[in-house]
Amino acid sequence: MMTSFEPWLIAPVSSVLSILIGLFLYNYVNSKDAGTERMKQIAGWIQEGSRTFLRTEYRYLGIFVVVMAVLLSLFLNVKVGIIYVFGTLCSGLAGIIGMEIAVKANVRTANAAKEGGLITAFPIAFRGGAVMGLMVVGIALFGISVIYWLTGDPEAVLGMSIGASTLTLFMKAGGGIYTKTADIAADLVGKVELSIPEDDPRNPAVIADNVGDNVGDCAGSGADLFDSYVAAVMAAMILGGSSGIAYLKTAPLVFAGIGIVASIIGIATVRVGEGGDPGKSLNLGTYVTCIVFIALTYGASVLFGYDIRIWQATAAGLLAGIVIGMTSDYYTSINRSPAIKTAEAAQTGAAINILTGFSYGLMSCFPALLGIGIGSAVAYSLYGVYGVGIAAVGMLAIAGVIIAGDAYGPIGDNAKGIAEMSELGDEVVDITDEIDAAGNTTKAITKGFAIGAAGLTALALLASYQEIVKSLVGTTIRFDLMDPLVMMGVFVGMAIPVIFSAMIILGVSKNAFRMIEEIRRQFREIPGLMEGTGKPDYGACVSIATMGALRELLPLIVFSISTTLILGFVAGIRALAGYLSGAIFSGFFLAILMANAGGLWDNSKKYIESGYFGGKGSDAHKAAVIGDTVGDPFKDTAGPSLNTLVTVISQIASLFAPLIIAYALIGL
Amino acid sequence: MMTSFEPWLIAPVSSVLSILIGLFLYNYVNSKDAGTERMKQIAGWIQEGSRTFLRTEYRYLGIFVVVMAVLLSLFLNVKVGIIYVFGTLCSGLAGIIGMEIAVKANVRTANAAKEGGLITAFPIAFRGGAVMGLMVVGIALFGISVIYWLTGDPEAVLGMSIGASTLTLFMKAGGGIYTKTADIAADLVGKVELSIPEDDPRNPAVIADNVGDNVGDCAGSGADLFDSYVAAVMAAMILGGSSGIAYLKTAPLVFAGIGIVASIIGIATVRVGEGGDPGKSLNLGTYVTCIVFIALTYGASVLFGYDIRIWQATAAGLLAGIVIGMTSDYYTSINRSPAIKTAEAAQTGAAINILTGFSYGLMSCFPALLGIGIGSAVAYSLYGVYGVGIAAVGMLAIAGVIIAGDAYGPIGDNAKGIAEMSELGDEVVDITDEIDAAGNTTKAITKGFAIGAAGLTALALLASYQEIVKSLVGTTIRFDLMDPLVMMGVFVGMAIPVIFSAMIILGVSKNAFRMIEEIRRQFREIPGLMEGTGKPDYGACVSIATMGALRELLPLIVFSISTTLILGFVAGIRALAGYLSGAIFSGFFLAILMANAGGLWDNSKKYIESGYFGGKGSDAHKAAVIGDTVGDPFKDTAGPSLNTLVTVISQIASLFAPLIIAYALIGL
Repeated sequence: MMTSFEPWLIAPVSSVLSILIGLFLYNYVNSKDAGTERMKQIAGWIQEGSRTFLRTEYRYLGIFVVVMAVLLSLFLNVKVGIIYVFGTLCSGLAGIIGMEIAVKANVRTANAAKEGGLITAFPIAFRGGAVMGLMVVGIALFGISVIYWLTGDPEAVLGMSIGASTLTLFMKAGGGIYTKTADIAADLVGKVELSIPEDDPRNPAVIADNVGDNVGDCAGSGADLFDSYVAAVMAAMILGGSSGIAYLKTAPLVFAGIGIVASIIGIATVRVGEGGDPGKSLNLGTYVTCIVFIALTYGASVLFGYDIRIWQATAAGLLAGIVIGMTSDYYTSINRSPAIKTAEAAQTGAAINILTGFSYGLMSCFPALLGIGIGSAVAYSLYGVYGVGIAAVGMLAIAGVIIAGDAYGPIGDNAKGIAEMSELGDEVVDITDEIDAAGNTTKAITKGFAIGAAGLTALALLASYQEIVKSLVGTTIRFDLMDPLVMMGVFVGMAIPVIFSAMIILGVSKNAFRMIEEIRRQFREIPGLMEGTGKPDYGACVSIATMGALRELLPLIVFSISTTLILGFVAGIRALAGYLSGAIFSGFFLAILMANAGGLWDNSKKYIESGYFGGKGSDAHKAAVIGDTVGDPFKDTAGPSLNTLVTVISQIASLFAPLIIAYALIGL
Repeated sequence: MMTSFEPWLIAPVSSVLSILIGLFLYNYVNSKDAGTERMKQIAGWIQEGSRTFLRTEYRYLGIFVVVMAVLLSLFLNVKVGIIYVFGTLCSGLAGIIGMEIAVKANVRTANAAKEGGLITAFPIAFRGGAVMGLMVVGIALFGISVIYWLTGDPEAVLGMSIGASTLTLFMKAGGGIYTKTADIAADLVGKVELSIPEDDPRNPAVIADNVGDNVGDCAGSGADLFDSYVAAVMAAMILGGSSGIAYLKTAPLVFAGIGIVASIIGIATVRVGEGGDPGKSLNLGTYVTCIVFIALTYGASVLFGYDIRIWQATAAGLLAGIVIGMTSDYYTSINRSPAIKTAEAAQTGAAINILTGFSYGLMSCFPALLGIGIGSAVAYSLYGVYGVGIAAVGMLAIAGVIIAGDAYGPIGDNAKGIAEMSELGDEVVDITDEIDAAGNTTKAITKGFAIGAAGLTALALLASYQEIVKSLVGTTIRFDLMDPLVMMGVFVGMAIPVIFSAMIILGVSKNAFRMIEEIRRQFREIPGLMEGTGKPDYGACVSIATMGALRELLPLIVFSISTTLILGFVAGIRALAGYLSGAIFSGFFLAILMANAGGLWDNSKKYIESGYFGGKGSDAHKAAVIGDTVGDPFKDTAGPSLNTLVTVISQIASLFAPLIIAYALIGL
């Protein structure tokens, strides 16, 4: 149905290229030596734990996906059902690959640090991350291309996008519950009750804790950006499709394809020489990608005769993303004023430490809110709602390099854990520590970036929801703030991310209690465990974390989806528009607040640990540890899940718009 | 300019009645014996501290008011400037009277507890609160009546309302900084460093701490409801004035007048017999007021031939207020599941206690958001934007009895403090404790109620802003969510309460540090202070709290007002509408979250103190104390100030609408 060469074919070509380079790098990492028997053994436990998590999660998700597919086929049509399943498969595949490479790269990084130092170890860690980055964007864009090639209809991509989003919500929020359950339980029993060090192999939760890093940060974050990426491209395509200008429909594919090329070039520039700084090198890769992307999209716009304002809107989106990322960096970095002042406040006790960090977290929302507000207004003034859509694409086009830097983090963290557990010596631990530290900075930036991108994407989804409604009823329905249905919708919609955050944080506590009981049981019942002669049952803890995540999460996801549908069917299209807006408002705000406040407490603790205000073991340190623990579920569980939550309900609203228009009690 | 009898004259008549009964009760309280010399001495210190606070605050506020009045006269017109000053004087007068009665009633309550027990003491405490309640609504409604009588123009009342609001913001936020500065500093040096008990007269901050209760809770809360009350009546009058139906303009005055009558009847029913329960009695008074109000307004609607849907909207507003108040009650009460579970979580340490309380605080937003959303939608569906306005009036009409119950709280709290410091014995302390405990429950309900009322008032103000713009440009300007200026405005507006909260919490910490230094200095330099032979310099601490409050607050208030004007003049009327909406969204959410989470941590600590989970001094108790300290500035400083902040900027926007329309860069 498509004629010979068309610009949008850049998308499938570059996505296949991305997948091939990803596979090549996978083989590169895999070919490295995994080290001593002890290292292989520990890595094997982490690998096994990660696979158990994925296997269990996917088994239950399989049921969820089948139920959803059947419901979609019944209420909408079979095509949507099939495309939905396709979306979940793409997202699931990206998750599996990311996880597999992470559990291979970690031990090989540790071994390389032992054999050849930082210069040998860094490329393995980073290329491991790059596999994840390239595979995620490659699979995502390839999937979109396939659907578009088969149907020629951007709205068909919506089904795939929802498939990806629901899976992501499970991976991201479930992974978040998993990782914090293990983290809190391992620390509370291990460090506090029994006074054994972190990452001590006697602790039955230690493997679950290391698995958690992969599950939450690696697979979770990858899935998160996969989801935003697909949603942004899809929303822009829908907005383009309804504009009447042919090339607007495919321009998002073209720009996304160029973004992949730029990411590949950026990834290639990341290397560390003698005495080099891994953190700087990672940032350089991101900046190179941005510049290449801006240059190439300008060229493409000229070449294909696009209106230049589209390119400008794209650049505005990318710029807003960078501003939000840099804000996160400033507010969470260990050597900046907010972290230092929060650390200083810890001298007066935990309460003041928490209040200070919370206050800076609130303040960090200001530039982010300003960035998203001004960015979207500029994009709109350039090219209407389509401008907002393509701005989101611009922000997410460089996802390849962003995910690479993000997935690098848990690989370094795991490498450090393996180096410690295998007793490779202080020198090796220090090298892995340096790799790990560089990951913490990129992680904070990535989070800000991901939240910003998701915010802009959600606005684009809201616009595409309006377009879909318009195409159904033949006229533009206004979402007027003074319309009581819209206003009511905003208030109810605001409550969804709020309730979700509350329940998921409570879920972590509940699940951590279960694991604490299990750890205590093992130390009580397994002979010689404390002395190091008995073998702990790592699997039991992995299983509690996994099942607990599912148990806490499933009702929440059902609640969010059904509230959306109930509100739509009771109060109609306009109320639902207000509802989506309200969810964007509170979701965006809470996501930024939680991510930044959590990162800040973490680094204020690390600042004290580096020797200030009394250093490790001082009262200030104890206070900062409390702040850090409060921040853990903020930054790793609730905060990062909210994006996806908002994306899911936005898309559910779009998908069910025809039914809501037909059957809602209050009509439009 | 008014003809013989008109229904709205109910307003001035009932407000004068309210003031007269208030004065009568003032004399009743004042005629009681203030007890022993020691009691009089301590009460004198508190009285002196409170007066110092008010005197200093008003002196600086005087300058602020004069500057504002000159600016308003220059940029708008002299009439606005004069009415503005009148508004500040009314609000200031209510503050002075409330404070004066509170510092008289506290010591007399303590003495009555000594002389005749609960039955003698309770009426003094409650009637002290009733003075505040009756004077606040009396002065407010009388002031509105005077302005309306002189001008016949509801928009003229806007100037008075802004005057009241700016003063309230200083009283409420300044009082909040004051009280928590003193509280935290007194506790940290007294209890933690020196291990002397609470309310110990050797502690130089003890008087400032007791003053703080009056300043923050009594004068502050009274001013808060004064402000919402005037704003709600004014907004409804403006909406009525532009409707073209004559009686709609004065119906808010009629209903407010009836609300005063209902409050007087409700207050009269509050009494405690032998073995009676003060808490139940207080709640009974509120319920009686509601029923009388509903019945009388129904009668008035029939008598004056009002559309019955107006009455229905009024009742819907009152109902929404009760729902929000009851939600606060459930989520903060000491014997309900959230507080107990939060207390239980304290056994696992401060972090889990804080996370649990925060999560329940988030959850408590759901019914409140639902209540305000559905309440406003129902009111709108009954009678359009006017329905929303009159619903806010319905909610606030019973402010008299609400303030009475609220002001009762700090009187009881102070009575307890005086009983302890004067060593009146355990029995007397127990009686004052019972009086105090009843106050804590009413306080939580009042806060929820005040926030709900302010939320609805803010929506009415937004509607009246639209009406004012319409009257200026001759056509209704739509506030469409898909309009990029509106959307940008929402994001920027959301940031204002967020930044305000952050800065004010940081301000408390900074100010507390200053006072801690001063307390330490006094213990170091005043001979015999620790032994009880030296006399501490209470005035120095009072002065630090007072000046610090002003120093932290002034830049914040200037920031909020100028951001509003800058956004308006740069991005125009629609952006400003989005901005006001955004401020309502985040302000309402944060206010509920902070008030309820703070109250919850407080009561979870009290639950442990009552003997559960190890009781006082246990590890769980220490953890809960940390949670309580985090909650202190949440519930007593930031949370309760946000209402007023939103009211102030909403009114500034309305007031400057003509200039913004004329001179804004982006026009409408």
